[in-house]
Amino acid sequence: MNFLEKRIQQEGSVLDGNVLKVDQFLTHQVDAQLMQKIGEEFAAKFQAKNITKVITIEASGIAPAVFTGLSLGVPVIFARKQKSVTMEDELLCTEVYSYTKKVTSTVSISSKFLTPTDNVLVIDDFLANGQAALGLSELCQKAGATVTGIGIVIEKSFQSGRELLEKAGFDVYSLARIASLENQQVQFLTEK
Amino acid sequence: MNFLEKRIQQEGSVLDGNVLKVDQFLTHQVDAQLMQKIGEEFAAKFQAKNITKVITIEASGIAPAVFTGLSLGVPVIFARKQKSVTMEDELLCTEVYSYTKKVTSTVSISSKFLTPTDNVLVIDDFLANGQAALGLSELCQKAGATVTGIGIVIEKSFQSGRELLEKAGFDVYSLARIASLENQQVQFLTEK
Repeated sequence: MNFLEKRIQQEGSVLDGNVLKVDQFLTHQVDAQLMQKIGEEFAAKFQAKNITKVITIEASGIAPAVFTGLSLGVPVIFARKQKSVTMEDELLCTEVYSYTKKVTSTVSISSKFLTPTDNVLVIDDFLANGQAALGLSELCQKAGATVTGIGIVIEKSFQSGRELLEKAGFDVYSLARIASLENQQVQFLTEK
Repeated sequence: MNFLEKRIQQEGSVLDGNVLKVDQFLTHQVDAQLMQKIGEEFAAKFQAKNITKVITIEASGIAPAVFTGLSLGVPVIFARKQKSVTMEDELLCTEVYSYTKKVTSTVSISSKFLTPTDNVLVIDDFLANGQAALGLSELCQKAGATVTGIGIVIEKSFQSGRELLEKAGFDVYSLARIASLENQQVQFLTEK
């Protein structure tokens, strides 16, 4: 069990509907030391890939993404779910459905921040059905940028997200892979 | 001019309605190195105050807050504007009006993360009318926690926020204080 899996085992809880609650250190309260370590892991994995930008989606993706950007020494962009009055540039937009929030959001990035020469690392807190990661990849494609990798903090491997992303040709690296949340128990994939 | 003011001078732009756009390094694209330095500044300022928690509000407050939490070695909580299905605990809630987004949001924190023994440092990206900082302070008060300080990345000193917060008795520390955005020019307060 790695450092993150231990933490999930100790502090995560399983709610009805296969929902894993990790609000003690990731999705509401954030353990910055843990995020730093997570950022270092993603950076180590993708170090040789000449990453030029890290992108994520607000809000829970921001903490792991900024530490990844710090370790790689590249800018981080967080896609926005709500348009701010300062977003008056040309926008790249796509629709993302969140199964945990039960809403479809229009997710956008100012087009000036992504160019065809960018090698992008997509970072997100959870991979379940893959909708957020696919949406972010779509924004990159619209900009002509290359998605060089996808780094996920917690993957629900029993849902369809990873398969979907791999079929689309993406290199997916998840720090914790969960095989099952049945009977309120967290079971990790043993082979990694 | 300090490191942040220089960056604002170089990369910020002024939009109609006294709006300062800093989406190159803070509100949309994030410079993680800069955020680390900002976190270290806040930590140095409040080091002696026995801070036990850093709180902020999603989304642009998260990057400066997590680096502050890292430097102080304490957990960071980001208040949420939208209820997630994993937020099934008792919530502390308040209403916050955003002048830049022109919407009122219900902002909430799970009550289990704030206790009467907490000394809280509130961190936010902007201080204009003070509504977000006041809202976060209200959540702390509801929990019986003490707001020990408020750290702001960019203060619009020509708006009412600082006065409001100081009148309420808070120790406000802003890294960049803007005296005026008139004629599309950023003028900083000279005395600091």
